[in-house]
Amino acid sequence: MSEIEIRKSKMVGKQSIIFHNPPCIIAASSVAGKKEGEGPLGPLFDIIFEDPLVGKDSWEEAESKLITDAAAKVLQKAGLKSKDIRYLIGGDLLGQLIATSFGVEDLEIPLIGIYGACSTMGEAMSLGAMMVEGGFADRVIALTSSHFAGAEKQFRMPLDYGNQRPYSATWTVTGSGAVIIADRKYANRSNGEALILIKGVTTGKIVDYGLKDSMNMGAAMAPAAYETIKQNFEDLNIKPEYYDKIITGDLGYVGKNILLDLLKENGYDISGNHMDCGIEIFDKDSQDTHAGGSGCGCSAVTFTSFILKQLREGIWKRVLFVPTGALLSTVSFNEGNSVPAIAHAVIVEAE
Amino acid sequence: MSEIEIRKSKMVGKQSIIFHNPPCIIAASSVAGKKEGEGPLGPLFDIIFEDPLVGKDSWEEAESKLITDAAAKVLQKAGLKSKDIRYLIGGDLLGQLIATSFGVEDLEIPLIGIYGACSTMGEAMSLGAMMVEGGFADRVIALTSSHFAGAEKQFRMPLDYGNQRPYSATWTVTGSGAVIIADRKYANRSNGEALILIKGVTTGKIVDYGLKDSMNMGAAMAPAAYETIKQNFEDLNIKPEYYDKIITGDLGYVGKNILLDLLKENGYDISGNHMDCGIEIFDKDSQDTHAGGSGCGCSAVTFTSFILKQLREGIWKRVLFVPTGALLSTVSFNEGNSVPAIAHAVIVEAE
Repeated sequence: MSEIEIRKSKMVGKQSIIFHNPPCIIAASSVAGKKEGEGPLGPLFDIIFEDPLVGKDSWEEAESKLITDAAAKVLQKAGLKSKDIRYLIGGDLLGQLIATSFGVEDLEIPLIGIYGACSTMGEAMSLGAMMVEGGFADRVIALTSSHFAGAEKQFRMPLDYGNQRPYSATWTVTGSGAVIIADRKYANRSNGEALILIKGVTTGKIVDYGLKDSMNMGAAMAPAAYETIKQNFEDLNIKPEYYDKIITGDLGYVGKNILLDLLKENGYDISGNHMDCGIEIFDKDSQDTHAGGSGCGCSAVTFTSFILKQLREGIWKRVLFVPTGALLSTVSFNEGNSVPAIAHAVIVEAE
Repeated sequence: MSEIEIRKSKMVGKQSIIFHNPPCIIAASSVAGKKEGEGPLGPLFDIIFEDPLVGKDSWEEAESKLITDAAAKVLQKAGLKSKDIRYLIGGDLLGQLIATSFGVEDLEIPLIGIYGACSTMGEAMSLGAMMVEGGFADRVIALTSSHFAGAEKQFRMPLDYGNQRPYSATWTVTGSGAVIIADRKYANRSNGEALILIKGVTTGKIVDYGLKDSMNMGAAMAPAAYETIKQNFEDLNIKPEYYDKIITGDLGYVGKNILLDLLKENGYDISGNHMDCGIEIFDKDSQDTHAGGSGCGCSAVTFTSFILKQLREGIWKRVLFVPTGALLSTVSFNEGNSVPAIAHAVIVEAE
């Protein structure tokens, strides 16, 4: 199949953008917790913390430290200082984004705080690519984080209760992933690896099928992933085979099946090239993680370790990266509301 | 003083952008509560709800309704449907942005959820202008909201306690403001009013002077406003007199004085052209609002009613609009952390 043609307008179809001058991902970093380090992707992470508190006094401060270290690491890998970065775009799951605010304040980079629940990495990369391609920034950092214990404390039960988790529940990933998105002229190809380009994006709408089970977020998010992926195909007039991999964020085992079914019912079979970060990051049988991993950090660290490696080594050429988010809070849940969801797709290609 | 010169790069100085083809604000709407309607700006609001619950069952749902109505009103005033809008950029103060998620879901517009506390309207307008000028959207909606009772419930004391409020505390505005930002070709000048252009932005960094008093957010935010305003002057190489008005979001009486002092100590006197939305929106003496109004809705409804009116009627030509946010949560506050702040400036000019 041919390359996506360059159109006069960057706006393509209803919800997509194709960049005329695709920005580059020039560096990436992944910081993870002990359990993630023991999982299948462990050997690929830049930093693994054995201590869940990361030497801090609270789960929230621990998460901020993951972010601080992910940002420092990505700057180091790119050989840059924080003053070389025009914007930092990021967010997390905690109310009022406190993990991000405290995690990045010492960097003194203009901040675009965003919230898309676990879709945040897709939103951050989409905005970052737009800022670079639009000429508003030469280099930006996009990053997100999550922390298992911080998320449990905020959304579920205090860990000390030791309550049981249903099999449809996911395990929030402790980790932070960061990328530097830059104009192509800043790319360094001296190492012989492929250039990683953000070719376009498909920004999601809120999708709400009325599900109310906060312990089954895969089911709530699958329809959002379905809508965004289908829209990407329609907007770009492509078939699923255009991509070597279509990679959702954290649908897990439950959500994956729903997504495949919804697409198949509508004429799209992605069973051969679908992958889910929530399924990849843990070993279900040995790690007791039930439906899989979740959290803003799940897709972020999977992208910045495994997915980018496959692209850089030329194993995959074209990836549709689709982080998915469940837009609930304990307040909305306790007031009996549904769990709306959203999914933001980013077209990442190796050249 | 001459117009800001158009440079080759849109990036100007350390933190600012000057647009080559400045986007237009083609429509605006303001929805407010009873107390705001009784204040000095009351006659200018599009919709005023007498019922604090706006016919809903919870404060959160009431806030969502304010957003739904602000979006519907701005579309109606522009003669547009939701399908004409490429992106909706918005956020609120509630954990996980539930007011926004539930408030906009029926619109089915691709959503960029953002969080900047009470600076959110500045962040939304900045991103919206970039998206339009970068060619990624023809028209976007930027909106924010806040609700007095929802904010008190989340950040302070249950209202039923009837606890006393210190004089440094602000009163969260119940309201939602929305603008449609569009390419200049969509502007309608038939009514003889001035064209309202977003000429540029200065995006803020996190500023944390270590204040820990959540009942004095004006003092926490004033340094952030100072840094962003000073940076705007330096980046653009202009003097304060370039602007007819420099308008902060919700510093209130306490924060205003700190801002003026900080700027004066550093050689800038804005005492003659400074205004604060939190001071304008309520009558301090008759409305018992202590240090002034606050919340994402404060700067949003002041901008979409009073500020735009002054610009459209040619009373002001150049405004620096600087919404200010205090990036705390009850978790960070209760854990003894400081209140970091941020301020995002938008250069709005009448032509």
